[in-house]
Amino acid sequence: MISDKHFKKRLSIVGKKIIERGIDVAIVFNNLNIYYLTGFPRGRALILRPDSDPVLVVPELEFDEADETFKLGKTIAMKADLSFSDIICSILNEFPKKNVALERQYITIELYSTLSKRLEIPEFTDFSQCVLQVRSIKDPEEIELIRRALRITENSIKYALEKIHEDMSEIELAGEIEYAMRKYGAEGYAFNTIVASGPRSAYPHGSTTDRRIKSGDLIVIDVGAKYYGYCSDITRTIVFDSVNESTKKIFDVIIEAMDAAISKISTKVTGAEVDEIARKVIEKYGYGKYFTHSLGHGVGLAVHEEPGLNSRNNSLLSVGNVVTIEPGIYIRGFGGVRLEDMVVVREDKCEILNSLDRILF
Amino acid sequence: MISDKHFKKRLSIVGKKIIERGIDVAIVFNNLNIYYLTGFPRGRALILRPDSDPVLVVPELEFDEADETFKLGKTIAMKADLSFSDIICSILNEFPKKNVALERQYITIELYSTLSKRLEIPEFTDFSQCVLQVRSIKDPEEIELIRRALRITENSIKYALEKIHEDMSEIELAGEIEYAMRKYGAEGYAFNTIVASGPRSAYPHGSTTDRRIKSGDLIVIDVGAKYYGYCSDITRTIVFDSVNESTKKIFDVIIEAMDAAISKISTKVTGAEVDEIARKVIEKYGYGKYFTHSLGHGVGLAVHEEPGLNSRNNSLLSVGNVVTIEPGIYIRGFGGVRLEDMVVVREDKCEILNSLDRILF
Repeated sequence: MISDKHFKKRLSIVGKKIIERGIDVAIVFNNLNIYYLTGFPRGRALILRPDSDPVLVVPELEFDEADETFKLGKTIAMKADLSFSDIICSILNEFPKKNVALERQYITIELYSTLSKRLEIPEFTDFSQCVLQVRSIKDPEEIELIRRALRITENSIKYALEKIHEDMSEIELAGEIEYAMRKYGAEGYAFNTIVASGPRSAYPHGSTTDRRIKSGDLIVIDVGAKYYGYCSDITRTIVFDSVNESTKKIFDVIIEAMDAAISKISTKVTGAEVDEIARKVIEKYGYGKYFTHSLGHGVGLAVHEEPGLNSRNNSLLSVGNVVTIEPGIYIRGFGGVRLEDMVVVREDKCEILNSLDRILF
Repeated sequence: MISDKHFKKRLSIVGKKIIERGIDVAIVFNNLNIYYLTGFPRGRALILRPDSDPVLVVPELEFDEADETFKLGKTIAMKADLSFSDIICSILNEFPKKNVALERQYITIELYSTLSKRLEIPEFTDFSQCVLQVRSIKDPEEIELIRRALRITENSIKYALEKIHEDMSEIELAGEIEYAMRKYGAEGYAFNTIVASGPRSAYPHGSTTDRRIKSGDLIVIDVGAKYYGYCSDITRTIVFDSVNESTKKIFDVIIEAMDAAISKISTKVTGAEVDEIARKVIEKYGYGKYFTHSLGHGVGLAVHEEPGLNSRNNSLLSVGNVVTIEPGIYIRGFGGVRLEDMVVVREDKCEILNSLDRILF
């Protein structure tokens, strides 16, 4: 479990970066970044300074829960008659403001320019990447929570596959999986469950509908439980009832692509290189144009976070990154196959967090 | 069901506003606004012009589904090797650009300034409120979908209350409600289900945990099914097993506050006035300081949308607004009571959409 010991360590890592960069005050707005540093999931702002306790700003209705959760600093309630910028300005006005950093990426243009005018700071230092970077390196407790979240999800897929029958709707199948996730302790869902069957399986992020399952359908199941804040993300594609040779072939290609990527993951490769390894396998078999998304993404408090396994990420992976490996082949009118595992990056290799079979039919 | 007839009408309402305001091009970024106008839920941008068809921009992996969904304009896939701003600029460069409007509220400062530089437009007209305003007025088909979403939720609460037992966890109770919502046809959830029991019921937005239900507990259940894109939102607080007189008194106050507000809702009052009516009742009984949030909010494709019933909304309500009425009294250490109904605003009154009893114990 994540305790004050962890929050203290996280605040100190970020605190060191603030000092290194000569920042007087840093304002965190991303609510998962705030959650990561305080343990409270619905904060509006967290104000960090080199030599004083952090200040957590929450909506008035959240004050009691926030105040009981966050013990390493001060919690302030936003009263309804004050605007958000009023509160931020009144807190900042007590501090030196030569170098004020904030998460530019997570505020509106209006808030940015209001703060800029009222605090007389023409340009704020950008702080958008700092906490995200720290979050991308998971410690053993975080990896354990992600592993448990994943185990809940895997067991729930197994549970639901026992219940599947012809004419069951996608929504009903999602309901069985989610019911099991709750039974096994999921505090919630990492994202909207995807159950996309038949021709709809060709939509990579297809929503879950009242379409009823027929014999021969491909069914893409992409689902993730949340456990103590941490997300899991797994995809299995099944074939209901009967499978033909051309479909089997697609599964073989996907699995070869996964294995090729996984066998090369280490701190010596970039996100783009890992993506490329899997893509090459799929291209080799002539399915390149049907793999229309990136290979994977980091998972933690957010289901999509750093680092990305995609053509744009030219940074080396780091020990403690947790990423998905999810190649897919989607053929309009025919259907789609995607499989997704999660791995944690170690020095010279990676460790697969999944224990569920990739082929479930 | 919402069909192309509706999308055409919605596009034409927004199109008229574009012409009235002398706008050459308007860019919609909010993905629910895009959903509202196209029927596709995961668009990245929608480009609107007075005299030509709308252009929908989607991630490459969404292209097939978007293209099959959106028939009233052109769909463009974002290729992985182009940036989002590249695509927006290449589309806009074909059009006159004297008055370009965009939803400033929904883009990052970086995207705004990149577009500004590359298109040589120092300041864009703000378009953030336009589609939100149109969305706040629901037509009969939308009200019917919201009503069905609410009915699914209400029936699911009834289903789950049959299953409740001592030592059941909050998470398990949430699982029973959600299971029934899926059985009754929910395509998903409007928000993370809140089941907050015992002292945790005093947290208005308390998350759902593994705390086990005990005799005498207050249990706040705040939940909503989604149906064809439309959200519902209902809260019932129950008392498990035994209820005492002081708790009953709190329920009476809450119900008096709801009825007072509901009886005054019409197009002649503002959101702030409705909030004030309920607040006055709660203050009269000495619980004013325990009602720490606003009275309600609009519901539609988003679970929180226009109009707000809060001290800051000085606009009159309109026919077709759908809003929640949800007073609450939260006493730290003791517990909380919240009840929430949904109403649709008519000319001289409002209509309650709920059919579930307010007192369920």
